[in-house]
Amino acid sequence: MIGSEIDNLIIAIAKLPGLGRRSAQRIALHLLKNKEFSLHPLVKSLQEADGKIVDCVDCGNIDMTSPCSICRDHKRDKKSICLVQDISDLWAFERTGFYKGLYHVLGGALSAIDGIGIDELNLNSLINKLEKKQIKEVIFALGATIEGQTTSHVIVDKIQKYNVEITRLAQGVPIGGEVHYLDENTLNAAFQARKKIT
Amino acid sequence: MIGSEIDNLIIAIAKLPGLGRRSAQRIALHLLKNKEFSLHPLVKSLQEADGKIVDCVDCGNIDMTSPCSICRDHKRDKKSICLVQDISDLWAFERTGFYKGLYHVLGGALSAIDGIGIDELNLNSLINKLEKKQIKEVIFALGATIEGQTTSHVIVDKIQKYNVEITRLAQGVPIGGEVHYLDENTLNAAFQARKKIT
Repeated sequence: MIGSEIDNLIIAIAKLPGLGRRSAQRIALHLLKNKEFSLHPLVKSLQEADGKIVDCVDCGNIDMTSPCSICRDHKRDKKSICLVQDISDLWAFERTGFYKGLYHVLGGALSAIDGIGIDELNLNSLINKLEKKQIKEVIFALGATIEGQTTSHVIVDKIQKYNVEITRLAQGVPIGGEVHYLDENTLNAAFQARKKIT
Repeated sequence: MIGSEIDNLIIAIAKLPGLGRRSAQRIALHLLKNKEFSLHPLVKSLQEADGKIVDCVDCGNIDMTSPCSICRDHKRDKKSICLVQDISDLWAFERTGFYKGLYHVLGGALSAIDGIGIDELNLNSLINKLEKKQIKEVIFALGATIEGQTTSHVIVDKIQKYNVEITRLAQGVPIGGEVHYLDENTLNAAFQARKKIT
């Protein structure tokens, strides 16, 4: 009963991350009932982004130029690289604004289930940067998940020889976190890494 | 730091129902990292639906033709109209497939907060249909919410004079529903409308 163009649209929307058929139906209806204020601006934004956005050849970020505006920014500390899994992690850092170094986006983490091996990760350009010997510190900001930690270990093994300081994000109680809501592993990590109150 | 075309896209996506900035970022990234398999098919579906989908002049449904395929279907019972708030409600009925009559989509419910009065609802074409005196039954399938019930009352008042049978959906325990999870109002409605076991 639903027209095939509507069905095709619902299917295309339902393939987006985090959306199912119900939410896709709701969005499709909203778009088709508000063509001028919703559908047309969305199509325009998609086409503009499609035409202008490229991958940064240096760090794996997306931007309107390659190298991206972060890699090209002369004010940033070129001696420090923050290693993240995904661009969304880079965005999370940039939202806070406290980090002034460069990034390197791996594009995922090692995962046997998803078939992501070491060759699928954006690692060569990181090695290239380290070989130029201008990097002083690599900050591992991968997820505190099994995949993220496994990936960190493998990459640490690979880059140790470049005589660079290797650090990782602290683990512990999230700010605003209630202790009784913490999972065992986080509580254990926070307890083991406890600090003296001075 | 995020390119303005990406920002514009995220803003356009975040305006869709049910999505916030975080989920919009995730979707935008997915689209831009999978242009061929996600962004391009989505734009194509949006444009095709945009060009072909119209509002049904009779019932308020959307379809590739007006009147829509349901209104034009000779196999359907033209004597029965199921009155729904939104097209998504019509789709919910059509998914089950048991109802063989026509629909009428109001396009919302009366709501002082949202500024929806009786003139904002798609009511004239319903009155037109009733004036032709071929309708035997109007089934009220509006939400069991304050807005839905208020709207039902107002419309019942308006159409009573047309000598048509007026019914509404039964209220009670949803199939699969546990009694101890029911809210008081539902439990009360289900108790008051209890039926004899034969």
